[in-house]
Amino acid sequence: MLRLDSRHPDFGQHFARLLAVKREVAEDVDETVRGIIRDVAARGDAALLDYTRRFDGLGPDASAAALRVSPEEIDAAVAASPPEPLAALALAKARIEAYHRAQVPADHRETDALGVTLGWRWTALESVGLYVPGGTASYPSSVLMNAVPAKVAGVPRIAMVAPAPNGVTNPLVLAAARLAGVDEVFRVGGAQAVAALAYGTATIAPVAKIVGPGNAYVAAAKRRVFGQVGIDMIAGPSEVLILADGSANPDWVAADLLAQAEHDTAAQAILITDSDALADAVAAAVEGQLALLPRAAIAAASWRDYGAIVRVERLADAVPLVDRLAPEHLEIEAAEAEALAARVRNAGAIFLGAHTPEAIGDYVGGPNHVLPTARSARFSSGLGVLDFMKRTSLLSCTPEALRALGPAAVALGRAEGLDGHARSVAIRLNL
Amino acid sequence: MLRLDSRHPDFGQHFARLLAVKREVAEDVDETVRGIIRDVAARGDAALLDYTRRFDGLGPDASAAALRVSPEEIDAAVAASPPEPLAALALAKARIEAYHRAQVPADHRETDALGVTLGWRWTALESVGLYVPGGTASYPSSVLMNAVPAKVAGVPRIAMVAPAPNGVTNPLVLAAARLAGVDEVFRVGGAQAVAALAYGTATIAPVAKIVGPGNAYVAAAKRRVFGQVGIDMIAGPSEVLILADGSANPDWVAADLLAQAEHDTAAQAILITDSDALADAVAAAVEGQLALLPRAAIAAASWRDYGAIVRVERLADAVPLVDRLAPEHLEIEAAEAEALAARVRNAGAIFLGAHTPEAIGDYVGGPNHVLPTARSARFSSGLGVLDFMKRTSLLSCTPEALRALGPAAVALGRAEGLDGHARSVAIRLNL
Repeated sequence: MLRLDSRHPDFGQHFARLLAVKREVAEDVDETVRGIIRDVAARGDAALLDYTRRFDGLGPDASAAALRVSPEEIDAAVAASPPEPLAALALAKARIEAYHRAQVPADHRETDALGVTLGWRWTALESVGLYVPGGTASYPSSVLMNAVPAKVAGVPRIAMVAPAPNGVTNPLVLAAARLAGVDEVFRVGGAQAVAALAYGTATIAPVAKIVGPGNAYVAAAKRRVFGQVGIDMIAGPSEVLILADGSANPDWVAADLLAQAEHDTAAQAILITDSDALADAVAAAVEGQLALLPRAAIAAASWRDYGAIVRVERLADAVPLVDRLAPEHLEIEAAEAEALAARVRNAGAIFLGAHTPEAIGDYVGGPNHVLPTARSARFSSGLGVLDFMKRTSLLSCTPEALRALGPAAVALGRAEGLDGHARSVAIRLNL
Repeated sequence: MLRLDSRHPDFGQHFARLLAVKREVAEDVDETVRGIIRDVAARGDAALLDYTRRFDGLGPDASAAALRVSPEEIDAAVAASPPEPLAALALAKARIEAYHRAQVPADHRETDALGVTLGWRWTALESVGLYVPGGTASYPSSVLMNAVPAKVAGVPRIAMVAPAPNGVTNPLVLAAARLAGVDEVFRVGGAQAVAALAYGTATIAPVAKIVGPGNAYVAAAKRRVFGQVGIDMIAGPSEVLILADGSANPDWVAADLLAQAEHDTAAQAILITDSDALADAVAAAVEGQLALLPRAAIAAASWRDYGAIVRVERLADAVPLVDRLAPEHLEIEAAEAEALAARVRNAGAIFLGAHTPEAIGDYVGGPNHVLPTARSARFSSGLGVLDFMKRTSLLSCTPEALRALGPAAVALGRAEGLDGHARSVAIRLNL
């Protein structure tokens, strides 16, 4: 774990190095992925079955119809789900839905003084594909975070794909899909699932956009099919930045740092504080709490390789550092939390006060937990309703409005060497 | 030019072929671009100067400071601009600004029944780079369409780059930059300009996002630096779809088809109509008007290779075809224009009525002319204020709110195998 002090003369350099750390090694799977996509686009279900047999142990006699998870299987998964997390998912769904409903954008239409009617209209995407990873990264909470905003947007068809190694799907993932209103579920994964969603097969109809996290193959496949369909951001390893003053509880801060670190050895947890005492106490508490975690090995590696504690003279000095780090998650546990938050430009999500651990936001707070990583909060937002809608602009001129605006359009068309543009206006005005 | 009839038994196949037509050959410039980006990232201004000397004829003695277009040069360009298009640009700027002001999104904050305060906040990007092509595709109107929404969003710094072959920049482009409030202008272009904006040099500070059109090198460079910075969409050749009934004026329809076709040999102009008479009259009018256009060779090639006239039984039958084509521009010149428009899901922009040629929208209507091409209106929107802002979610729990929500978060953390998440909540509740 790195310790920095902004009062040190070399701080600028050290901080720049922290900013520049690459936490992800890009696996070069692009050629493999290109072949899989081409194959699925050409051979459809037959290719999808081949890859699913090879990678997920699907039986040799299974037909394409078997790739669809039936409503009865989902009923059974719901029945088999432990009641406590099932109830928690229902609470989470209700809160996520309420939060995202407020994001539904308004249409706009007005007629100006010249008689030009103009505005825009939002429409939902006609269909969305949701990728859900298999194995330990198969999170029911992520199903809700991706599917609920799409349904709030009004997307009529959500097709979910999730690999089922040896036929097994996490029942809570299926229960979350049911809760969120997912319309179709397929037990396929990897680049082949992305290709099927993008190009369609006899069993899986194509979608307009693909969202959801995945491994290097899935990420490479999403990049490749972009254009054919829309995609969401490509998420990197998760990260938290905690801004805390001397009043913060070091055990709580340490628990929050470790909650981030346990995600992935490439996750990053950083504390910035104006208190030496807190810095020391948190460092000690992290070591103490590590032993209690089932995922201690992962969390320890993340903390060792990418963790940092930065001492600043005053917390206000931290604001420019926060903006440069542009963290996915920013917790502020300090007396002046609101005032500090107001001055931050770049953060995916802000958690205010000592009683708002980031894990609340991961599950049941209401805001989306799909957030920009790797400093991309400088230019992008977390997932929301707008990601499942698009805006169409509207323009309508009366003959009088065209007469008023036309000459300027003709002048610009001619100035740009686009005489056909100018003509299309002039011909209506007998210019 | 293709003529199709929806009443023909093979129409489905023919239309599918029209949908699948590739109008762009992807030039393989990726390796060259990769080298240029690496070089600029490593050597900064020195590399930028080298490439600008080689590609744009910059003098051997020019220093990096000479890459900046001075305010005095912009003054001179404004003074040298012809008055009529200059006045038209001022009108366009005012209308674009008014339209986009209505897009500024609202922040949201509420406290729910449990005492959870939640919402979001929009902030402007800290800086934006605007690429403007050189040569004939150097359009002052595009400078306005990209820069005005950024300024409306509140972006404090817009850095524009435009190649100046042999030192020459279109004076109207500089005048548009001045009008739009662009903060810095540099006479650099190509992949080297994109690299400079993404990584920064001593002369050009890095930006958070790069927007604007460009050639294959610029497009490849934008794809490569994505992640380091944000980028806008990669625009393809432009396209128009006109929906018209027998009441439409064939000369006007033909002029609008040609206004699109003159952009590029890869542009696409399509007419869908329920009138054989209009179809024939438009086909004849296109041939007649072609001779009048300075860019006749380009427009003729586009119309020959990608133009189409589709006859449908009733215009209402066209709506599903429109949604599959998802055109960048949709003109509706028909009695029932509003009703048809209301049923369309996928279009970048809709122009209603006979007196709204698309060229009005290109210049002075108010809506943005940067719109999704190549069927991407299925999943994306035209450029707008939201492209220059990002949303930060906010969450704050009181101790009581955490007590109410905490157990559900703990249950989900444990169910997902993320005990550190569960612990970060439980430790605050003595669970």
